[in-house]
Parts: sequence; structure tokens; C-alpha cells
Amino acid sequence: MYLPLPYTMMSGIFLTFALKIRLITNMEKLTLVKVGGKIVEEEESLQRLLVDFSAIAGNKVLVHGGGRTAKIAEKLGIETQMINGRRITDAETLKVVTMVYAGLVNKNIVAKLQARCVNALGLTGADMNVILSDKRPVKDIDYGFVGDVRRVNAGALIEVLKQNMVPVMSSITHDGEGNLLNTNADTIAGEVAKSLSYDYDVTLIYCFEKKGVLKDENDDNSVIPEIDKDLFKQYVEDGIISGGMIPKLENAFQALNFGVRTIIITEASELCTGKGTHIIK
Amino acid sequence: MYLPLPYTMMSGIFLTFALKIRLITNMEKLTLVKVGGKIVEEEESLQRLLVDFSAIAGNKVLVHGGGRTAKIAEKLGIETQMINGRRITDAETLKVVTMVYAGLVNKNIVAKLQARCVNALGLTGADMNVILSDKRPVKDIDYGFVGDVRRVNAGALIEVLKQNMVPVMSSITHDGEGNLLNTNADTIAGEVAKSLSYDYDVTLIYCFEKKGVLKDENDDNSVIPEIDKDLFKQYVEDGIISGGMIPKLENAFQALNFGVRTIIITEASELCTGKGTHIIK
Repeated sequence: MYLPLPYTMMSGIFLTFALKIRLITNMEKLTLVKVGGKIVEEEESLQRLLVDFSAIAGNKVLVHGGGRTAKIAEKLGIETQMINGRRITDAETLKVVTMVYAGLVNKNIVAKLQARCVNALGLTGADMNVILSDKRPVKDIDYGFVGDVRRVNAGALIEVLKQNMVPVMSSITHDGEGNLLNTNADTIAGEVAKSLSYDYDVTLIYCFEKKGVLKDENDDNSVIPEIDKDLFKQYVEDGIISGGMIPKLENAFQALNFGVRTIIITEASELCTGKGTHIIK
Repeated sequence: MYLPLPYTMMSGIFLTFALKIRLITNMEKLTLVKVGGKIVEEEESLQRLLVDFSAIAGNKVLVHGGGRTAKIAEKLGIETQMINGRRITDAETLKVVTMVYAGLVNKNIVAKLQARCVNALGLTGADMNVILSDKRPVKDIDYGFVGDVRRVNAGALIEVLKQNMVPVMSSITHDGEGNLLNTNADTIAGEVAKSLSYDYDVTLIYCFEKKGVLKDENDDNSVIPEIDKDLFKQYVEDGIISGGMIPKLENAFQALNFGVRTIIITEASELCTGKGTHIIK
């Protein structure tokens, strides 16, 4: 059958459009949960988290921080160096961080998930070359062995997910030259979510000890249900959002722009309920 | 073309035979290297080992023990319990072992291999449910959190190998009920070698600080080039082979019977030369 050129072009455009719709709607869901040190260091809160995490259907990834390092470092006679209130990761501290995050915490989570029939695989950024980072350049402060994420190897993670396995990622990366680097767990969660958003419909959940972003930090019930970029700016100006929550939310908006579909900040016990603060475009 | 039945049968038998030959000769080679704590705990010997290990062509697996745990346990105020000269893994010791073996040692090896373009993946038995073990039953001695290997998940390892990745296995397994278990690294190497021998032509190399099994322990050049089962019995009777070498060799003969093709006991620096003691059927 002969069709004049304009028709052919139009049907081509329509087909492209239809294919795009199909690709987006057919994307498998993936839930990426980030939990902080306080949750993983207490047996009870960790256990509850893992029950909820196990109940999440479909593809999922867990990113965790550490916890107990300060106490262990002290016992080992390693002094924690602080500059301007920020912890410095010197060579000895890096050893402790590696032992606790990648060893003790990570492998206990993996074993406990296996007991719940979740086929977990514990990873640092060095394993399968999953996260390559750059040692933070020295400007005002030398942070020591701290890495800023350069590249996430999404392909390797996708292969793991395709085998119905669940990556459990500790907040340690590597520089490709044989050195491990201590890396912010929130950043890892954001970067991994972004890199997987090409292939999955990603929900990123930041779990912490509060019910969400609070309007009044002394009132646990003052959770802000939704924050967009304008509201965020307003809250920062008004001093309602401050401190560590600012980079967390900035990361979140960046991830949304990049293609991550849903971002929630909530407490660990609300992992499956969708409650908390939703970050929207 | 019509062939009378006997010919058809004969050609069938011939074909089956030919296929079997083909399957065996076409098996890909795999080298499994086991290194002890002393080699991995010194920076220099570890570095040399990793240079040699990186140079091994084709499929490979590294199994390692720990090292430094005693010093770290002491600093953390954990007393090492010994019964009849054997170390007991109580709950606190297990934490140290997990930190050092699965964290510090494993992840440093992985990062250093990545720097040599070896796509390493660090594993405990809990990761991907690779090695399930049983907590050793209490008879005369309660060894504590020590595991005896029940099952190796060869399928998961083969998937990793197919992606040109290199499993780096620390000597920790799990019981499937959420508990990590300290497990003998020689046993892990033997069991993994056996489980992979269905699919690969496996060479198992036990690296330690001597040049091989020695006829005279004070003479480094008295390496026994080949030991078969009869010679082994003779050497044990004569007191030439004793102590920890006996279970190591018993494991080796078991692995040979099971289908592992080549077993060598040698020092780390001879990893690529084939020198050392060859264990033969």
C-alpha cells in the first residue's frame, strides 16, 4: 500500500509516541530504601526494619550507613578527628568504618534478610566496580579518605536485580586505584536511584528516626505531607528546614529532575504505608 | 537412507561416547586459590599475591582467611577463649571475625583487584546464599559460632563467573536462620572446588608460607613433588606429615575423588609456576 509522505511521517511520529508511553508504563517498579546508622545499630529497630523491607514486593535495594564506629574506634585507641564539627576519615578511621559498615553491619543485614527468604547480596562500591568515586579534593578542609561519587555501574546492579537478588549497599566506595573511600549514604542512595531510573520506575525512601520533615521539630505530628521546590525554598528562608535536611532535600530534588519517580522521607516503621513527607517536582 | 538396527545403535553409542569426550575436554578451566591469614595480613605479601593472582588467565576464585583478629580482639577487650588449644568463637569473637574477614580484609582485596582490572566481588556465605552451613553440634567442646559447610550454591557462583567476575570469598558462612558462622577457609576452598567441578576443569591451589609439603620441616628445599594416597598414609605413619597438614591433605584427596582435576600445595609466590606439592589420585 502506498501512503503519501506526510501520512508516513505522522504514523512514524505516532508510533514513536506510543512506544514511549509503553516503555514508561511498562517499567518495572523498584524501591530503594536508605536507612541511617541509628536504625541499624539497635537490634530491635533493625529487626523491625528488615521485616518491613522484606515485605516490599518486587525489585528493591537497601542502602545503609554505619553506627557504632565511634565506640569501636575509641576502644581501638583511634581518636576521631573533627574539623569545624565535621568528622575526618583518616587512614585508621577508614579501617574502622570498613570493618563496621562493610563487615559487621552489612553481613548481619544480609544474613537476616536471607533468613526471610530475601536473596541479599552485600556490596561496597568496590564490589563489581559498582560505585567509583573521587577522593574529595583538599580545599579548606582535608576530609581524608572521603569519596564523592563519580559513576554508578547501573548495568551490574541490573544484572543482580534480574536474578531476583537484592543489593544491600554499605556507604563505602572506591577510587579504582585500590583505595576504599568513606561516602555519604544519602548521596549513594540518590545516585543509585538516579542511575536505575532509566530502567525502573524508582521510589526512593529515606528512612530516619522522625515521621517525616517536621514543621516544628518538637512536634512529631507536624509532618509536612508534601514539599515542592518553592515550598522548600520558603521553609529554608523561614528556618523551618535547616541543617542536614537541606542537602538531603537538595539531593532529592536533583533525583526527581533526573527521573526518579517518587521520593519519600519517613520513619522506618512507615516503610510500607507511604506515610511521611513526599518530595514532588 | 536405511541402516539396520545394530548399526543405528552402534552409531548412537559412538555419538554418546564422542559427546562425553567433548564435554570433558571442552570444560573451561577454573583456578581456585586459597590463601591463609599470614599472607593477607602483611601489605607486602598481599600485594605480591594479588599481582600473581591477577595474572591467572580465565575463571578464578579467591578464598581467604583473616589474620589480625587476635590483636583487634585484645584491643576491644575481648578475651580469646581456648579449649584444648582450639580457639572458641563466642558471640563477641564472631563480631571481630566478621569485621576483619568480611570487612577489612575482603574489601581491601576487592578494591586492590579492581585496580588491577580484575572485576572482583567480595562474598561471605550469606551473600547470594552462597554457602549454607550448620552450627557445629556440641560434643566434647562447644566451639561456639563455628559452621560446618552443608551446601554450596554453585549456580550463583557460576552466574558470577559467567559475567567475567571473580568471587573473593571470606571464611564466613551462614545458617539460613540469620546467624553468621566462622568457617574453616581450607574447607570452604575444598567444598567450593568440588561444587564447581561439575561445570569446570578445576585447579585448586592452597597457598601457604612454605614451598609445599616438606619431608623435613627444617629444610625448605625438601618439598615432596607428588603425594598419592598410599604415600600420604606412609608419611603420616612415619610422622613426616602431621598436625594441620593431615586434614588439609584429607580434604584434598576427597576433592580429587569428587572430580577436582588438580590440587597443588605451594607458597604464594609460586602461584603461577605450578611448583609445590601436587596431590594426585
